[in-house]
Amino acid sequence: MTDAQDLADRVTEGELRLHELAEHADADTAATARRLAIEADTGADLSTVGDYSFPADDAESNVENMLGAAQLPMGVVGPIAVNGGAAGAGADDSSQHYLPLATTEGALIASVNRGASVITESGGADARVVETGMTRAPVFRVSGIAAAEQVVDWVGEHEDDLRTAAESTTNHGELLTVDPYVVGDSVFLRFVYDTKDAMGMNMATIATRQAASLVEDETPADLVALSGNLCSDKKPAAINAIEGRGRTVVADVRIPANVVEERLGTTPAAIEEANTRKNLIGSAKAGALGFNAHAANVVAAAFLATGQDAAQVVEGSNAITTIEDRGDELYASVSLASLEVGTVGGGTTLPTQSEALDVLGVAGGGDPAGSNADALAEIIAAGALAGELSLLAALASRHLASAHEEHGR
Amino acid sequence: MTDAQDLADRVTEGELRLHELAEHADADTAATARRLAIEADTGADLSTVGDYSFPADDAESNVENMLGAAQLPMGVVGPIAVNGGAAGAGADDSSQHYLPLATTEGALIASVNRGASVITESGGADARVVETGMTRAPVFRVSGIAAAEQVVDWVGEHEDDLRTAAESTTNHGELLTVDPYVVGDSVFLRFVYDTKDAMGMNMATIATRQAASLVEDETPADLVALSGNLCSDKKPAAINAIEGRGRTVVADVRIPANVVEERLGTTPAAIEEANTRKNLIGSAKAGALGFNAHAANVVAAAFLATGQDAAQVVEGSNAITTIEDRGDELYASVSLASLEVGTVGGGTTLPTQSEALDVLGVAGGGDPAGSNADALAEIIAAGALAGELSLLAALASRHLASAHEEHGR
Amino acid sequence: MTDAQDLADRVTEGELRLHELAEHADADTAATARRLAIEADTGADLSTVGDYSFPADDAESNVENMLGAAQLPMGVVGPIAVNGGAAGAGADDSSQHYLPLATTEGALIASVNRGASVITESGGADARVVETGMTRAPVFRVSGIAAAEQVVDWVGEHEDDLRTAAESTTNHGELLTVDPYVVGDSVFLRFVYDTKDAMGMNMATIATRQAASLVEDETPADLVALSGNLCSDKKPAAINAIEGRGRTVVADVRIPANVVEERLGTTPAAIEEANTRKNLIGSAKAGALGFNAHAANVVAAAFLATGQDAAQVVEGSNAITTIEDRGDELYASVSLASLEVGTVGGGTTLPTQSEALDVLGVAGGGDPAGSNADALAEIIAAGALAGELSLLAALASRHLASAHEEHGR
Amino acid sequence: MTDAQDLADRVTEGELRLHELAEHADADTAATARRLAIEADTGADLSTVGDYSFPADDAESNVENMLGAAQLPMGVVGPIAVNGGAAGAGADDSSQHYLPLATTEGALIASVNRGASVITESGGADARVVETGMTRAPVFRVSGIAAAEQVVDWVGEHEDDLRTAAESTTNHGELLTVDPYVVGDSVFLRFVYDTKDAMGMNMATIATRQAASLVEDETPADLVALSGNLCSDKKPAAINAIEGRGRTVVADVRIPANVVEERLGTTPAAIEEANTRKNLIGSAKAGALGFNAHAANVVAAAFLATGQDAAQVVEGSNAITTIEDRGDELYASVSLASLEVGTVGGGTTLPTQSEALDVLGVAGGGDPAGSNADALAEIIAAGALAGELSLLAALASRHLASAHEEHGR
Repeated sequence: MTDAQDLADRVTEGELRLHELAEHADADTAATARRLAIEADTGADLSTVGDYSFPADDAESNVENMLGAAQLPMGVVGPIAVNGGAAGAGADDSSQHYLPLATTEGALIASVNRGASVITESGGADARVVETGMTRAPVFRVSGIAAAEQVVDWVGEHEDDLRTAAESTTNHGELLTVDPYVVGDSVFLRFVYDTKDAMGMNMATIATRQAASLVEDETPADLVALSGNLCSDKKPAAINAIEGRGRTVVADVRIPANVVEERLGTTPAAIEEANTRKNLIGSAKAGALGFNAHAANVVAAAFLATGQDAAQVVEGSNAITTIEDRGDELYASVSLASLEVGTVGGGTTLPTQSEALDVLGVAGGGDPAGSNADALAEIIAAGALAGELSLLAALASRHLASAHEEHGR
Repeated sequence: MTDAQDLADRVTEGELRLHELAEHADADTAATARRLAIEADTGADLSTVGDYSFPADDAESNVENMLGAAQLPMGVVGPIAVNGGAAGAGADDSSQHYLPLATTEGALIASVNRGASVITESGGADARVVETGMTRAPVFRVSGIAAAEQVVDWVGEHEDDLRTAAESTTNHGELLTVDPYVVGDSVFLRFVYDTKDAMGMNMATIATRQAASLVEDETPADLVALSGNLCSDKKPAAINAIEGRGRTVVADVRIPANVVEERLGTTPAAIEEANTRKNLIGSAKAGALGFNAHAANVVAAAFLATGQDAAQVVEGSNAITTIEDRGDELYASVSLASLEVGTVGGGTTLPTQSEALDVLGVAGGGDPAGSNADALAEIIAAGALAGELSLLAALASRHLASAHEEHGR
Repeated sequence: MTDAQDLADRVTEGELRLHELAEHADADTAATARRLAIEADTGADLSTVGDYSFPADDAESNVENMLGAAQLPMGVVGPIAVNGGAAGAGADDSSQHYLPLATTEGALIASVNRGASVITESGGADARVVETGMTRAPVFRVSGIAAAEQVVDWVGEHEDDLRTAAESTTNHGELLTVDPYVVGDSVFLRFVYDTKDAMGMNMATIATRQAASLVEDETPADLVALSGNLCSDKKPAAINAIEGRGRTVVADVRIPANVVEERLGTTPAAIEEANTRKNLIGSAKAGALGFNAHAANVVAAAFLATGQDAAQVVEGSNAITTIEDRGDELYASVSLASLEVGTVGGGTTLPTQSEALDVLGVAGGGDPAGSNADALAEIIAAGALAGELSLLAALASRHLASAHEEHGR
Repeated sequence: MTDAQDLADRVTEGELRLHELAEHADADTAATARRLAIEADTGADLSTVGDYSFPADDAESNVENMLGAAQLPMGVVGPIAVNGGAAGAGADDSSQHYLPLATTEGALIASVNRGASVITESGGADARVVETGMTRAPVFRVSGIAAAEQVVDWVGEHEDDLRTAAESTTNHGELLTVDPYVVGDSVFLRFVYDTKDAMGMNMATIATRQAASLVEDETPADLVALSGNLCSDKKPAAINAIEGRGRTVVADVRIPANVVEERLGTTPAAIEEANTRKNLIGSAKAGALGFNAHAANVVAAAFLATGQDAAQVVEGSNAITTIEDRGDELYASVSLASLEVGTVGGGTTLPTQSEALDVLGVAGGGDPAGSNADALAEIIAAGALAGELSLLAALASRHLASAHEEHGR
């Protein structure tokens, strides 16, 4: 600690900057020195932040200027039964999963757990990844639309060359397609990749840089930005809600009417009405890209537990929930257009996150490649479905209850 | 541990369910039992998840079915100078802040830190909360539009009564306005509150329930759902991007051209071009509600460090970045339409989160009420601005560099 | 014609430009000369274009470089019964209307007419204008957000002064509110007016110019554009779909189940399903601001017949259609968020357009002021409702029919 | 006229309905009878509506319940020079066009004409159709997502069979692609066609009906609606703004700085600023799909003059305008994502509309097929560009002028 205090003092005295500490000490000592310097500067006590459970070195690829760790409560929902797809270990199979969720929002886990229980009791949720594709869309400058047309034509005729260039940078990724968009003298090329079990943003970026370089060499296009926001990463954008990004994953379930009544305290008709007026009509009037109750809650909590990128909760909220009262049963579905998940890379190797993935049985690369990330996406979708059902039922039953009291109905 | 193992065995044998453990043991023992049961079921090792640094009781209002904690690396950027507003301790003042960020995305903190350094060197960022209002919008069923008109008329004439009802449930919150929207036989009332230093979702919900009850009593309207998605919480929605939710906060900075060149390795013109083609034109073509490079990254990392609701990163990404090359200086701004933050309640009292708020000097209720949450919003906005600048500069300079090499320019 | 031919020759020889003809001859002769010149240049025959039924002088405020007139087939639907509101001559009254529609789309009028007939048979549609406000939103440049805050504060404190300035330019218009929006160093002020029986775009523009001048005089703001696209005129924009522009008008109807079956050849359940999957879920997935089947068809055809601005069909399509199967009856509604109509000014005084307004009994200024435009909006909404019903029924019944044939169901 | 009066009397007496007149008289007599009956009922005078210049029979496929015609003033802009593409008769060629516009908005034609003149003086606009595809997207019901996956898989494996089915209904149309989208138990298939010189909505609908029938026969999918709003026709929808519908067409121009100053009375810098703050930032804040000043004005006026579908002005407004001050010249572009035009079918064969197409030299089918509609799209794009330039310049110069007066700058 002496070393750390010395280093902290040098920061306080202006001799060193916080990020320079990494060059003067091992990762844990540097983190300690930063805490000491900031405690001295601000009067804050950072002892809990400093009480983390892994060697700071292990987080080197995840953070700079490390102080320690934030600790978020982690709970669990389940078991939730998921049928078919990668999570169900094959189209005709089913499996049960515990889904770890990290959150600070009280009642969330209790609510999702209730939904999970009802789903499992009803025979489980079907879940499927229906499309996969991580995207990166550089923007190029051209002199005008005549040149833009040349670039687009060249791209159309050289997709194989672009694939060769892009795939030369990766062992696993595959370039699926390149979609061009022209806006005046800007040309956007949206590269779509199968990145297997990786969320794939880095893989897609590196591969696209190589392909973009080829475009610059062979056409009049000049690269302005490797991401031109048609990707679109971490921004609410219709292109993702429509065309998907990462995994497009859907989950649904049929719940017998009596289970709805006994377990959720309401009726299929009341849940359908709540969904139609709130999630469909209300979202329509709000100018929304998300037509759901709170899918982002489950997405966020599962992302934090399993080491996904928290900022991609933005795209994870591009979800549509449908409810149909089929008389003797309730049909419920949630369709997540752009769920970006991976089971390798990013935060997935951090210790608590890796443990959470082990609970799901999807840590690391899958066999076949991509199947672990598919399974993770499907389980999260089933969890989101549980959350939708439970919240919609609460809205519907609370109203019924209060209506009963107040109006004697 | 014996107790915990016994309890876990009873779960494994089907005698107890995970959430029932809370009734049979203290919070920490119950969490241990859950880990043991799940370890037995899945083969996962949850020892790091179980190595958390706070009494489980303290997280009781944040999580159910607790297993332990997720640990996310926390780093720090700054000092970043922020002028005026609540963060600057008054309109004519300035102050410097360290901003803790929890993230798993490598290079993010280094990048934001570079931007922060440039901002501070340039005299700091101005930041202002320009509007405040947490919303809740219940949806009511009426028999048709003739009845809808009656309800809307009644609301217009009884805003004081609605205020009295709503504010009877809260010590701090104030009802600012009620905006009605009619879609056929659905009436949405968007209640807007000043919730002071609380993020305010719960406060707004409880107050709105009371007001909605009055609407049901006095008009032909029947409540269908206390949230009708015109709020709109945790969904990408234009209504938030336009009208705001939580804090509408803007930050800007003027950076001398020579600082851009020396510290960012590029030119004001190149950064402006990257912003125009990527953040404005690219986002336009993407059908986006977010016209920025990666504001959600800073919002998410600051939210996780300071105990905000991670799912509200969705609204936090409704941001517009502008860049203007003014010849001798670069003007840069970021306008976050709907940043939902609090310094009391939610996850803010958890130990690592509370420590992070202490670093910023904004833990707990402010004086005047609301000023701590205002200051937090302003510092996050300044951080987002730093992130935008740094990434745009990287895009611009990387291209210049590679263009130089490849084309001899 | 000799004069006209002479003038045309001078155009052909390059001595005169087309628009200069207005200075050398009366309006009809100038139009003839233009046709002759263009016929000479292009080989086209413009005799039908030249066969218009009004003095060219009368169109002077509607067109420049006049050649003649486009003739669009005009048909009629109705009678359609409309209850309450301005169209129904009071809240408890009803009236029947023939609605003239100008269109080139075969089957449109037949379809809308079928819907109108069913509505009338079912007791008529309720229709109400629930909000009125024509908008103009200038954008100002400021030095930064600190100055932006000053401007917004000044506006908040001087709404009366802005009203005085704005209303000094108009005999009829009233300034309702001014809503400020800040994006970096751009300040948008959205002025909302009650423009009575005028569509009001010109009135709002002139009044806003005056108010904007006051803002420039009294604050550090510099006007960049009198329209800053937050108005938003003739662009698809969520702000109009949410907050309205022109008239926000809703219409609904209850149709007995047996009428649905006998007259529309389908069932309430089938129409509800078509609406939910197509207009709600399909539009949600499309990233739409319009959740309807073809409201724009009726809006466009009514606009063309009655002299409205055809480009404002864009905003007229911001409509949500809802259908509910209530067992013994079908509930149907259409809510048009931003229908911009007038009965004075613009194209309303042209001869065929004026005649069409006379058919509706709403030509010219109403008593009270605004009631004619309200009535027009309500009748168009009822017409749009008729169109929605008929098309949805066609989709539903066509499928049933073909399903019957093909699958023996 | 006696016959007509007799028929009108029978309508007044309730013996006949308006649409039944078609069975009792020739088209012109029936129209006269309708006018008489409505005049009697409403007191309106319909003499100008009845003074149309074509045999009513000729409008049989365009209108039902015909009364006569609406007459809209038609003016003309140009000549406007258009380079390359179909309008320019080849990539290296240029041609000059007069563009007829039908409008009731005073000053529109004068403004567009000014822009056209500046474009022509600057060497003309480049214009290109960069993508073509008319769409129809039926929605099918399936039992759940497992069945949805089967349908999507089947479609992926049978695109040739779908093509054969679809193309069996048309002589000209070609099925380009079928894109599937799954939302819970709804499957949308977006069929994209090259419809050559036809706008193609009818062609696409008929072909899709045939293909949808095959899908129903071979998969568990049941057709709910032949249009599922992912098309998306006549609704503001991001899918069209992103992926295009009809023609995606771009036009641009380079204007020397001195021409901007002399002819438009402002500077490239001022026009760029107006465009950035209004069309980019303002539209961003408005939640818009249209980032332009008033493209819909030109689209609407050209559509009315040339017999296009007026309701498709909605999609025609999905346009992005860009302006760049390049120092010695101004670069301006407009990119219309979804311009739906045809030169055969629809209203194109009506007499005034056909004459207007003759002025442009694009009436009827082109050689090669599709080239006439391409040329029409390009000329409209050039006209829209003229309109954008002129309005932006007016905004910029008016401000400069008034700023000069008021502030002595």
